[in-house]
Amino acid sequence: MVDSAFAKLPALSAESTCYAVIFSSRRSAGEVEDYGATADRMEALAREQPGFLGMESARDASGFGITVSYWRDEASILAWKHQAEHKTTREYGRTHWYTHYELRVAKVERAYGKP
Amino acid sequence: MVDSAFAKLPALSAESTCYAVIFSSRRSAGEVEDYGATADRMEALAREQPGFLGMESARDASGFGITVSYWRDEASILAWKHQAEHKTTREYGRTHWYTHYELRVAKVERAYGKP
Repeated sequence: MVDSAFAKLPALSAESTCYAVIFSSRRSAGEVEDYGATADRMEALAREQPGFLGMESARDASGFGITVSYWRDEASILAWKHQAEHKTTREYGRTHWYTHYELRVAKVERAYGKP
Repeated sequence: MVDSAFAKLPALSAESTCYAVIFSSRRSAGEVEDYGATADRMEALAREQPGFLGMESARDASGFGITVSYWRDEASILAWKHQAEHKTTREYGRTHWYTHYELRVAKVERAYGKP
């Protein structure tokens, strides 16, 4: 059975690399009414972008979470960064939803797993 | 107040890069007595290794988790991979603790965050 929490990436090679955007964040205390639906909407929108390869996400009970999205190249990451709805939401979210976040962009050099 | 869930990485530059090891995993169903203490021990051991820069980890209520560790260079990742206690534990853990895991090694190209 396929576990859909995992990103299914294409095989990597010298000609076929990919990039990871690692976003770690601490949710602000208290429930925010619009967070869940907006986060779902942003994930659905990301999945429609050219160059999107996959996404994995986990948040623990303390409110600390990590989301890793995978992209074909830097150009697709930049296009997503400048996508209008994403840009507006991101700016709102970073002010209202998180006490702290870190974003790291990294080029995937190798990968393996099971099964 | 410093939020210790976040890895505090040195500033990146052309001369000072770093690497991320992104480990995503699904815990097997049911409690495993030795998991928590062993995971803590592995994290403490990783923190002692040369070239270790930081670690972030989140696991959700469904058992899906992401751990990202940051390292100075490929050599420090390989040394940790071959560290004897880590190697034994990793092989045991991958058989007994996870139904699925993926590991990706990536070179961090840029980073930013708040605060």
